[in-house]
Amino acid sequence: MDFLELLRKKRDGGTLTKEELGFFANAAANGSVPDYQLSAMLMAMYLNGLDARETADLTLAMAHSGDLADLSGIEGIKGDKHSTGGVGDKTTLIVAPVAAACGVKMAKMSGRGLGHTGGTIDKLEAIPGFQTALSRDRFMQIVNETGLCVVGAAGGLCPADKALYALRDVTETVSSIPLIASSIMSKKLAGGADCIVLDVKCGSGAFMKTEEDARRLAKAMVDIGTRAGRRVAAVLTDMDLPLGTAVGNAVEVQEAVEVLRGKGPDDLRQVSLVLASTLLQLAGKGSREACEAMAEDALKSGRALQAFERMVEAQGGDVAFIRDPSRFPKAKCSAVLPAPQSGYLTAMDAEAIGRVCVLLGAGRHTKEDAIDPAAGLLIHKKTGDRVKQGEPLCTLLCEDEAKLPAAKEAYLRALRFGDTPPKPTPLILDVIE
Amino acid sequence: MDFLELLRKKRDGGTLTKEELGFFANAAANGSVPDYQLSAMLMAMYLNGLDARETADLTLAMAHSGDLADLSGIEGIKGDKHSTGGVGDKTTLIVAPVAAACGVKMAKMSGRGLGHTGGTIDKLEAIPGFQTALSRDRFMQIVNETGLCVVGAAGGLCPADKALYALRDVTETVSSIPLIASSIMSKKLAGGADCIVLDVKCGSGAFMKTEEDARRLAKAMVDIGTRAGRRVAAVLTDMDLPLGTAVGNAVEVQEAVEVLRGKGPDDLRQVSLVLASTLLQLAGKGSREACEAMAEDALKSGRALQAFERMVEAQGGDVAFIRDPSRFPKAKCSAVLPAPQSGYLTAMDAEAIGRVCVLLGAGRHTKEDAIDPAAGLLIHKKTGDRVKQGEPLCTLLCEDEAKLPAAKEAYLRALRFGDTPPKPTPLILDVIE
Repeated sequence: MDFLELLRKKRDGGTLTKEELGFFANAAANGSVPDYQLSAMLMAMYLNGLDARETADLTLAMAHSGDLADLSGIEGIKGDKHSTGGVGDKTTLIVAPVAAACGVKMAKMSGRGLGHTGGTIDKLEAIPGFQTALSRDRFMQIVNETGLCVVGAAGGLCPADKALYALRDVTETVSSIPLIASSIMSKKLAGGADCIVLDVKCGSGAFMKTEEDARRLAKAMVDIGTRAGRRVAAVLTDMDLPLGTAVGNAVEVQEAVEVLRGKGPDDLRQVSLVLASTLLQLAGKGSREACEAMAEDALKSGRALQAFERMVEAQGGDVAFIRDPSRFPKAKCSAVLPAPQSGYLTAMDAEAIGRVCVLLGAGRHTKEDAIDPAAGLLIHKKTGDRVKQGEPLCTLLCEDEAKLPAAKEAYLRALRFGDTPPKPTPLILDVIE
Repeated sequence: MDFLELLRKKRDGGTLTKEELGFFANAAANGSVPDYQLSAMLMAMYLNGLDARETADLTLAMAHSGDLADLSGIEGIKGDKHSTGGVGDKTTLIVAPVAAACGVKMAKMSGRGLGHTGGTIDKLEAIPGFQTALSRDRFMQIVNETGLCVVGAAGGLCPADKALYALRDVTETVSSIPLIASSIMSKKLAGGADCIVLDVKCGSGAFMKTEEDARRLAKAMVDIGTRAGRRVAAVLTDMDLPLGTAVGNAVEVQEAVEVLRGKGPDDLRQVSLVLASTLLQLAGKGSREACEAMAEDALKSGRALQAFERMVEAQGGDVAFIRDPSRFPKAKCSAVLPAPQSGYLTAMDAEAIGRVCVLLGAGRHTKEDAIDPAAGLLIHKKTGDRVKQGEPLCTLLCEDEAKLPAAKEAYLRALRFGDTPPKPTPLILDVIE
């Protein structure tokens, strides 16, 4: 196949066939077409778009460009959950055990954090002893025995996505809905689950800043999954402020465990329950109402916490930390940030708060950076709260005192105060099936 | 400067500043930005365009990316002529001596042929002894002494254009009016002439297939030249069929000499005269009518032929071949192609005829190919002519008999016959100033 012909076609606003998109994905994976031609194609795709059929075909071609996870050794229906990324987003640590407790097998491959949002793998590794690099056999065994296992994404998965994402990152072709949708979904399809629930976040802390964009991305991903023969739904959730009150790694595990104990912040519990019940519905566990009740019961009864503990134990983690989260190692330094004025907290720039956490050592700038598991933030006042001057806004946690002044300043810059309370915004915007 | 910011701007339909376009051109010239980013920018420019100011700024930046020809050692007004390329287009060999005979100094840098059109340098090198690689001093000296000199384009000229053109060629970003205009004009501006006449061809044998595209390109180039402070005009001419009757190298020189002797085909003389008189007008030699009369007189009086002979002599060529063109070495093989049917010749695909010449050895597929100077075509019947079955349509000339069958077949495929004569089309479509 002549790549220049494909390039000409997309440049002139045409649509590419399944075979042509397959050629493109494989060329990216094996390097048979030079980067300067791939990047010209990415810019043409960015500007002229991909229709729904093209997006699905590209995604499938990317999924098939490398190894496919073979989950046939796992009994029962397999579920997966993905978030487009948010600040304080620890819902996987709750949704996966809830789903497992209700009979959905969660064989999850997850990523590390980069940029302003944390990754599930980083959070789980804050549990002393927890292993995220397991053999395929051990992974399957743990899923069959405990109902869930979370490991780092395998290297051989979706090499086309790996190559194209690296190129998009340096050619300003990241922010394209069909390209984002195909990148995310190629990994989900390669991951092998039957049912996939997507948490598409929108707002100041999300990659999609507007509801319109988030809705378009959600529709594109659900459409891809459906065309690929999987059961997929997307929940549109608010990420205009951090989810829950803990942002970091160890602190987020602690907060997730709180929710698994039937306590914890209400917003985090709500988002987790809607994600879990949507996944249960996809898995054919009953009506919306029945699945909601089932998910709530898994929390209330402690069965979700038990599933989580079994997974931690199976993956080498010290379950004593889950049973008594106060045992998690404390950060060397902590500082309470007092409110500089009285009034209502009217807005929080969640992305900026995510960057404060990176500043404190809880995230990474490059893939090679190490993170401090105990670093992070505990948020005491959120958007809509009334504060008095001097009241604690948040507690900053880090290993190096020198990081505190800049972090404090950046945190304050991320807040807006006013005399009247802001209009409350809904937490769950829509469920797209 | 951050190249990603520039890329984002152009991707989103913004306009780039003079400084930003300068950064882009220099980055292309010195390789400081990787090809995959340059090609993403080229695709964004292709799809989102460049406005007139951006096109002019890019062109100037490209012209200044390397050496600029310093023509200050040449007395008087300096002229240049450029053709967008056609089949049988030997007008430079006529226009340059006519202009020189009328007092315009023609210090011309020219190119070799590639694709289906021949290059002036290849044609001149068909004259035994003719040198096209001269030192800068010798070049200036010849211009001062004879009024004209034609050499191959110097290597250090427009490195940005060289790099960007090579990349456009392999990323399907060639056919963009602002990018074509800036590529051509950057070399013309770097060439240093005061007045530039552009022959913008349109039709089956031209790069611009439609009059609309040719007109847009002509306007873009005239606009660039004017913004750069040069006197520039473009003549829109027909290239739906070959110009004149000879296509090749030695045969084209012979035909040009015919015109310089006051004979030769009428279409070739007409196009040459309008180009020459337009250049004379730009050089301030008088009104349109006065310049037309001046150009015609240069031909009639033999002064243009004398100027051409002086140049040939000064550049080492054997002037005996100009005085008696029958002395040019003949091709080893020649074959007359008879008309397969009677009727009117209603159309000729000039690009296909150009490719027949490449097939015969008169052109090159890659820059490294050698050419056969005597190979080519003599056309006996052109669009609009009435032909009888068996009458000679053309004579094919080459060094290797084995090339003839495919060339004959391809030539016939390039022709259309019919029962009624086609509507005549004008040769000169417009002059754009």
